[in-house]
Amino acid sequence: MRVYDVIEAKKNRRALTESEIRFFVQSVADGSATDSQIAAFCMATLLNGMTDEETFLLTDAMAKSGERAPRPVSAGVFADKHSTGGVSDSTTLILVPVLAALGIKCAKYSGRGLAHTGGTLDKLESFAGVRVDLSPEAFERQVNEVGAAVSGQTVSTVPADKRMYAVRDVTATVDSIPLIASSVMSKKLASFADIILLDVKYGDGAFMRAPKDAEKLARLMVSIGERAGRRMLAAVTCMDSPLGDNIGCNAEVNEVLQILRGEKENGLSRLSLFHAAKILQEAEGVSEREAEARAYEVLRSGAALKKLSEIVAAQGGCAGDVYKTLPLAKNVYEVRAPESGYVQVSALALGRACAEIGGGRAKEGDEIDHAAGIILKKRQGERAEKGEPLAEIYYNGALKEGGALAESAFRIGDKKIQERPLVYTFVGGKRS
Amino acid sequence: MRVYDVIEAKKNRRALTESEIRFFVQSVADGSATDSQIAAFCMATLLNGMTDEETFLLTDAMAKSGERAPRPVSAGVFADKHSTGGVSDSTTLILVPVLAALGIKCAKYSGRGLAHTGGTLDKLESFAGVRVDLSPEAFERQVNEVGAAVSGQTVSTVPADKRMYAVRDVTATVDSIPLIASSVMSKKLASFADIILLDVKYGDGAFMRAPKDAEKLARLMVSIGERAGRRMLAAVTCMDSPLGDNIGCNAEVNEVLQILRGEKENGLSRLSLFHAAKILQEAEGVSEREAEARAYEVLRSGAALKKLSEIVAAQGGCAGDVYKTLPLAKNVYEVRAPESGYVQVSALALGRACAEIGGGRAKEGDEIDHAAGIILKKRQGERAEKGEPLAEIYYNGALKEGGALAESAFRIGDKKIQERPLVYTFVGGKRS
Repeated sequence: MRVYDVIEAKKNRRALTESEIRFFVQSVADGSATDSQIAAFCMATLLNGMTDEETFLLTDAMAKSGERAPRPVSAGVFADKHSTGGVSDSTTLILVPVLAALGIKCAKYSGRGLAHTGGTLDKLESFAGVRVDLSPEAFERQVNEVGAAVSGQTVSTVPADKRMYAVRDVTATVDSIPLIASSVMSKKLASFADIILLDVKYGDGAFMRAPKDAEKLARLMVSIGERAGRRMLAAVTCMDSPLGDNIGCNAEVNEVLQILRGEKENGLSRLSLFHAAKILQEAEGVSEREAEARAYEVLRSGAALKKLSEIVAAQGGCAGDVYKTLPLAKNVYEVRAPESGYVQVSALALGRACAEIGGGRAKEGDEIDHAAGIILKKRQGERAEKGEPLAEIYYNGALKEGGALAESAFRIGDKKIQERPLVYTFVGGKRS
Repeated sequence: MRVYDVIEAKKNRRALTESEIRFFVQSVADGSATDSQIAAFCMATLLNGMTDEETFLLTDAMAKSGERAPRPVSAGVFADKHSTGGVSDSTTLILVPVLAALGIKCAKYSGRGLAHTGGTLDKLESFAGVRVDLSPEAFERQVNEVGAAVSGQTVSTVPADKRMYAVRDVTATVDSIPLIASSVMSKKLASFADIILLDVKYGDGAFMRAPKDAEKLARLMVSIGERAGRRMLAAVTCMDSPLGDNIGCNAEVNEVLQILRGEKENGLSRLSLFHAAKILQEAEGVSEREAEARAYEVLRSGAALKKLSEIVAAQGGCAGDVYKTLPLAKNVYEVRAPESGYVQVSALALGRACAEIGGGRAKEGDEIDHAAGIILKKRQGERAEKGEPLAEIYYNGALKEGGALAESAFRIGDKKIQERPLVYTFVGGKRS
């Protein structure tokens, strides 16, 4: 068998066999397939599609392409969560300590921010000294001892996905449902979580614009995970406007701390508790109502904040930092309402504005300014009078196009626009 | 503009603009586009197609991507010929000296053999000492002085095509009509020929199996050449069975010499004289009948053989070698008829058999054994009695699968199969 023949088959719209898929993934992982062959395979897959069976086999082969940490033999349920990427979306930093405080172990592998979306690892590094490159052994130990760990994957975990993603990123082959599903789920299946919750975004700030497409992706990923023996949950949630009020690493961490201290309630806090309750319900078989009450209680009591403090300390940071407020950049640019009316806010434009002032990355490996950020003063659907502040932009270096991009993120309308639902649909769950 | 955006547009089935195509080709030529981006572009083009306008622009941009020899100011008409690749097809080595003997200058850029097809440069190198890497200056000088030159292209002539072809070869993206047309015609437009004759093969031993597809490719290439101001001719010819009786470098050169000496007449000699007459007709406006008579006369008189001798000598070989017979490999394996009946011969299988015994290449850069070859004893449609020799295989090293492949090339049937026409159709030509 040759990599060439596998590409040829997909080009000719033939469904690939299990041995063809395993051979291709192995060739990607061991380096014998060239970047050009990976690109041709991805473009043929994007244009000609894959059956659900092929997508499962691709995911499974990718998940097995590197080292895998076995599920620890310790008692308890391990949970993981994945978001397809949003703006002002720090649910992980709330969800993980809430779950750990509830006794559900959180083995969370995260990524870094790219383009207009933020990344959990960058935000966690806002706490001075925190390490996010835990070895599989250190990761497993911390999950057992603290109840939760948040780390990047070590290079060898899913090498086939790492190579394929790098190629897709420069060849316009990211937006393929089978390729997105296999990339996300291969990393999830390589971890040892029992319960996996997927947050699949739809809307102007997401890969999937239409909720129906996001639902299709969610259902495909749920079926892949269930076939691999995991308990799967998936929420299709809205990413038209930013989820919380803050954008940028330090700003988002400050918002997380406000929520964990019980000082703030908004879409971010609501979605985080929604996710926590769904996982608790699945893990312990309790009612939806009881799950919600218990999730809210660990937040109200300060138990979740204390758990975040333990996680930060276990990963090399200072436990007391969660009781402080992280600094923002020294220069402030204010966006004001050009007229009176109802506010619409674009997550995509604000995410881009934050990247432009150094708070995000144009390409993998770029440095990030943790103090750069944006704080929303008016949210989607709120009324603003002419001249009222809509947002504050905190920047250290040059504002560049950041001001104009942030201004373009707002529209003032005569009428209040009907917002799309935060949770469009929820799929999966054996106990729900 | 980014290469990414050009790929994205083609992926989304949008026709590319002139500036997008020029930017892409420039990025391929200067190395700023990655191999993976070239592969994604080629797969998207293969699956989504190109308009004739896009294909012309791609060809034109590729032709201009490197150095180009200007058309010499000397008198006379310059002709070039290109075949899409066949088995036992040495028309170039007959056509070029015939045309030169008729006073039509032949500026022939050729290639090497790959897979089951032979290459003119390899065959020409069967003459000891012959060089096929002439500089543009040496090439032009020889065409003016001798009337003909046959050489490989120097690296810098069409760099964009060279990179794209290397990527297509390993990514299953060769068989795209716009990509084949632009690759062939970019090289032709980078040369200074006034009249270009294309021999587009159809049949089991050709890229295009169906004559209609080959005709489509031929018409597209003719329109590209005409739009670029060249006089275009194209024959769609059959490649079900080998064109001549010999396969392999030395064996094919021996057959060429037999034909130029007037000792042999077959499909190869007929097609070569057909091409020569078509070019003569176009160049001088004579009647078809007169063109055929004059082409036959330079062969009969020995003038064409003498011209080949001059070409060989000008390129570093020995003038007297065209009056000798080149040696074949020392071991002989005979394929005999397993039963009595009418013979069918597969060009593809015999081409592969010749490659297997070292007479062809599996991949670019492989060494070739000039003495390895196959001589047909029975042609398509002839009758063979059980045990009669069908072919002789000459090999130096191991026979490997060569014997079995050669045997698989023959089928003996009860009835004589209706052969498909050697020349299916002819297009182009302003004077015909």
